[in-house]
Amino acid sequence: MSTIENRLGKTLTPVPLRQVTIQDPFWSARERNVIDTVIPYQWDALNDAIPGAEPSHTIENFRLAAGEAAGDYYGMVFQDSDLGKWLETVGFALSKERSPELEKIADDVIDLLERAQGPDGYLNTYYTVKEPGARWTNLRDNHELYCAGHLMEAAVAYYDATGKRKLLDIMCRYADYIGEVFGREPGQKRGYDGHPEVELALVKLYQASGNRAYLELSRYFVEERGQLPHFFDTEDQERAAAQGDGGAARKRKRGYDYFQAHLPVRDQKTAEGHSVRAVYLYSAMADLAMQYRDAGLREACRELWNDVVERKMYVTGGIGSSAYEERFTVPYDLPNDRAYTETCAAIGLMFWAQRMLQMEQDRRYADVMELALYNGVLSGISLDGKSYFYVNPLEVWPDTANFRDDMRTVKGTRQPWFGCACCPPNIARLIASLGQYIYSVNEEQRELHVHLYAGSRAEVVLGGQPVTLTQTTEYPWNGQAALEIGLAQPAEFTVCVRIPGWCRKAAVTVNGAGTDTGQLEKGYVRITRTWSDGDRIELSFDMPVEIVRAHPNVRAAAGRIALQRGPVVYCLEEADNGPNLQDIVVERDAEFEAEFDAGLLGGVTVLRGMGTRSVVPPEGAGVLYTTQEYDRTAVPLQAVPYFAWSNRTPGEMTVWIRSS
Amino acid sequence: MSTIENRLGKTLTPVPLRQVTIQDPFWSARERNVIDTVIPYQWDALNDAIPGAEPSHTIENFRLAAGEAAGDYYGMVFQDSDLGKWLETVGFALSKERSPELEKIADDVIDLLERAQGPDGYLNTYYTVKEPGARWTNLRDNHELYCAGHLMEAAVAYYDATGKRKLLDIMCRYADYIGEVFGREPGQKRGYDGHPEVELALVKLYQASGNRAYLELSRYFVEERGQLPHFFDTEDQERAAAQGDGGAARKRKRGYDYFQAHLPVRDQKTAEGHSVRAVYLYSAMADLAMQYRDAGLREACRELWNDVVERKMYVTGGIGSSAYEERFTVPYDLPNDRAYTETCAAIGLMFWAQRMLQMEQDRRYADVMELALYNGVLSGISLDGKSYFYVNPLEVWPDTANFRDDMRTVKGTRQPWFGCACCPPNIARLIASLGQYIYSVNEEQRELHVHLYAGSRAEVVLGGQPVTLTQTTEYPWNGQAALEIGLAQPAEFTVCVRIPGWCRKAAVTVNGAGTDTGQLEKGYVRITRTWSDGDRIELSFDMPVEIVRAHPNVRAAAGRIALQRGPVVYCLEEADNGPNLQDIVVERDAEFEAEFDAGLLGGVTVLRGMGTRSVVPPEGAGVLYTTQEYDRTAVPLQAVPYFAWSNRTPGEMTVWIRSS
Repeated sequence: MSTIENRLGKTLTPVPLRQVTIQDPFWSARERNVIDTVIPYQWDALNDAIPGAEPSHTIENFRLAAGEAAGDYYGMVFQDSDLGKWLETVGFALSKERSPELEKIADDVIDLLERAQGPDGYLNTYYTVKEPGARWTNLRDNHELYCAGHLMEAAVAYYDATGKRKLLDIMCRYADYIGEVFGREPGQKRGYDGHPEVELALVKLYQASGNRAYLELSRYFVEERGQLPHFFDTEDQERAAAQGDGGAARKRKRGYDYFQAHLPVRDQKTAEGHSVRAVYLYSAMADLAMQYRDAGLREACRELWNDVVERKMYVTGGIGSSAYEERFTVPYDLPNDRAYTETCAAIGLMFWAQRMLQMEQDRRYADVMELALYNGVLSGISLDGKSYFYVNPLEVWPDTANFRDDMRTVKGTRQPWFGCACCPPNIARLIASLGQYIYSVNEEQRELHVHLYAGSRAEVVLGGQPVTLTQTTEYPWNGQAALEIGLAQPAEFTVCVRIPGWCRKAAVTVNGAGTDTGQLEKGYVRITRTWSDGDRIELSFDMPVEIVRAHPNVRAAAGRIALQRGPVVYCLEEADNGPNLQDIVVERDAEFEAEFDAGLLGGVTVLRGMGTRSVVPPEGAGVLYTTQEYDRTAVPLQAVPYFAWSNRTPGEMTVWIRSS
Repeated sequence: MSTIENRLGKTLTPVPLRQVTIQDPFWSARERNVIDTVIPYQWDALNDAIPGAEPSHTIENFRLAAGEAAGDYYGMVFQDSDLGKWLETVGFALSKERSPELEKIADDVIDLLERAQGPDGYLNTYYTVKEPGARWTNLRDNHELYCAGHLMEAAVAYYDATGKRKLLDIMCRYADYIGEVFGREPGQKRGYDGHPEVELALVKLYQASGNRAYLELSRYFVEERGQLPHFFDTEDQERAAAQGDGGAARKRKRGYDYFQAHLPVRDQKTAEGHSVRAVYLYSAMADLAMQYRDAGLREACRELWNDVVERKMYVTGGIGSSAYEERFTVPYDLPNDRAYTETCAAIGLMFWAQRMLQMEQDRRYADVMELALYNGVLSGISLDGKSYFYVNPLEVWPDTANFRDDMRTVKGTRQPWFGCACCPPNIARLIASLGQYIYSVNEEQRELHVHLYAGSRAEVVLGGQPVTLTQTTEYPWNGQAALEIGLAQPAEFTVCVRIPGWCRKAAVTVNGAGTDTGQLEKGYVRITRTWSDGDRIELSFDMPVEIVRAHPNVRAAAGRIALQRGPVVYCLEEADNGPNLQDIVVERDAEFEAEFDAGLLGGVTVLRGMGTRSVVPPEGAGVLYTTQEYDRTAVPLQAVPYFAWSNRTPGEMTVWIRSS
């Protein structure tokens, strides 16, 4: 690596989940819901015990692989990853509170994993059951390393929470074997997976195990991607030779860019292809840039980041606007009614944003992380935690969404499960691990960064001694937060608090005395002092209703505004505003009142204001086109948080509202 | 038929093509283009002689069927119909002027058709070549009677133009055979075609041959449609029994409504399914309503008509808004960028409108006929007649249309030919037969109706003697038209001139003396008098630029206006207005100047006015979302007729323009 000599500045380290306890009016219920409802529900799903839901067969596949059941493999080629995400979620849950019952289930399934593992360490039910002997013959399409990656992440989370090494050891054995198979040495495959995931997982496995070979293996996979001769062609030819079919029949029309393998990663300047693959890869790139202090890789990450957030991201933090190939398209192509914006892609954007934030310590990454969290991620799960959106449109007219084939991926209501069930366990693990996104410390343990506002208690070491930081807030419904320091003896260190990018006016006090917020460092107020036990930082962020507009190149948002308050983007729903939301117009300087409604949608702040609607005269009912102008009449409007839509009677929804 | 006793009022008869000569600055060049360019070009296409175009194989299929060539059938199952439409176009062309060279080609191919016909009269190359013995086993999908219908229409047109009976006789033999196969008698199939066409063709064959059995057969096909037990199920079961496959594999997921076979036609209240199928069926229904003076069938036609024009028609007269199944969808679902609006569907709407107009003598039908003609039909062919749109969107952003799979049917430029080449020959035959849409006479030959304005000479019999009507106009570019009467002796009859629905102020004079236009009868000024040779009716229709708005339920047109002048709907093109047309806003009461530009697009009237565009400040270039409002700056705009778009540098286009 020629660029390894380009030194980066110092980076931050997230305060890990086991040191952060969430105690928050907004998040605690959601966390509890994941632990009490979603984990058992998804366990049932993995065991095909949910009536009416699409079958999963995940656990049965492992039984088949272990030789403990008879039958055929069923499910996606990446079905194993659903167990990985579920076990990882269990790990996150157990890091908050141990549960003998849950651990028993997890330990049993880890035992099953062990029995399903080959003597050489190989662990993949699809190939073990369905194509024995054909392993590593189709990296491009068959998600072998992707599944390995999710099980590695699970192993790390479970080990972090419980100290139990069994799954970690299983996955280290598998990683060791993978490291033998792949690489640039003679006899090794110069391959990489069509779906990035193992790359970021190997970084975690390195951190948990201390085995630097895993970090090196991650670097190999990332750097090899897109090199010539192209591995996907090589393996295509090898398959063809093995199968004697000339290879033609197995060629897919997908371009290399779908897999982010069109160029070596350092030469990729724009975000292309499958959006989840993309952000998982970019996350690993950021990890490696930090681990190797690699400025070239950092620069590649920055360029890709700018391409996404300046040209290819919805106002909700959703990314990937095309259902076909679940991919990024061209700059500013952000249709609302056919937004794909897969829940997993918004989650992956958070993964990437968090890493960029540790690397750059710049609130622009935290702003996007927060935006995705409160909008494009959270919209993926119903308030009761039992139904999910895979696709998160910004406008729905059920009549057409239910009818038109070109909108077949858009569902007007959340679904109980999916045949391709990547999103439900992904959102569960995200919510269960939210604690690790809130705080970071620097390498010298002399700075604590506060990135997100959520009631929580963090146990860290700062200035050489244990420090407790207790945050209390009613975020995102109001902009007040208090941070209380707990420590045995006074100590000097720095607390950096993020002033959110959405906030135009902020006040920060320490023990009641004002602090200058004019001098922000990349969006953070740095407070360095000798802290005493009970010291209290109080934050007040003005949180008016903001009228948001898109760059004029976003054709789909032309002439429209979105309503945002704090990090929460709002929408209009038919349940509040009647049908035909596209007829509604708000004045460009309309005033909206925010009011918390404890009885609505589990308790949300709603926005109330006025708009206008067309008046169709009686004689105009059957007139499709006219040279007459329609009169307009004032109507009250109520907007609800986008994440909370589709929890009532199905109907229309729109984020972008026409503006005069 | 219980409803046969419900008598209709009297109906009109179109003045046939051979009695109308077009001499018009707008249409003559287009007619010449069809005769001189399109007919030879499409003959080359049918013979696979156009480099780079998708192959047709149509003529070769007939050679195969005649046993005069060796090889395999190639093409759509309805490939024969392309020859039918081409021959019909040739017939229309020859009705204007005989051409020994063209007739030689046509006579030769008619000889080939005769040799390809079976001894029992059967004539279909797909079944003869590819599935001999399987004829009439899949009426639902395989277009056998559809192809027969197009060849019948060709036979009638060729006979009308040349007096040559050979093709007419061929098709009468085929029709006789069809009449033996299908019907309600024992041993007959109670079937009908999945694609209506033969029904309207049989009415024409009846009119040309005088054989009323063909009219009865048409009525049988129309009335049998959608009856129970459902024929498509019956033939499915028969196929399954014959093939021993249980039928399951041959079941398609298409609903009966796709074929307008979900209900008996008299019970169909809304336009459903494949839009071309629909309007071909409705055309036959209107034919039969007139032929049998069947008020029940007329009422069904009226209800279907209202559903289309009040809820399912684009402002261009295009219909069928879904690419999937090329179909009608739900009321008001008229997306612009994914408009399907097949050229053939707009043509079929003209067919239907013309028939409704003869039946009802109401300009509302002529208005739609004219709207479709000057917009959704004419947009289907390039100015040089050599490239075509199958799909006619109302908004194109090439970056996304070329990229997104959900817009794969939208082409940013016209194509030289199509694998499914229904539209090019359809538009050719429409233009070549335009003469028959202009005038009608009533049953007593005492009334002449003028429906369309186009320079032309009509030879009719009125009041017992031959009358020549000579129309001169520069329509659609201005609203003046003169109608001059030529006749040997004075005679009393009525001339009914249509005041177009788009016209708010009209003046009609006879020999310079004003006529009261306040008392319109269904949109027509009736002028009854004793006419002398040289009498002159002058019409003046105010033709300002009109700002058109859609019913508020049309979500895709919310907050937008379209520009229309006379019957011509306009659009903005990137070639005139730069990229990002969706950013442009016009004032709700904006003034546009109309100016004829002889050098542009073959000579069109353009509209010029002012609009505004956003100004993105330098620091805003990378800002995707902002709480700042963008300044706007005035920009000149030029709109061109929608039909003429995509004849210059490819780029964006929009019909609906944002309005303040």
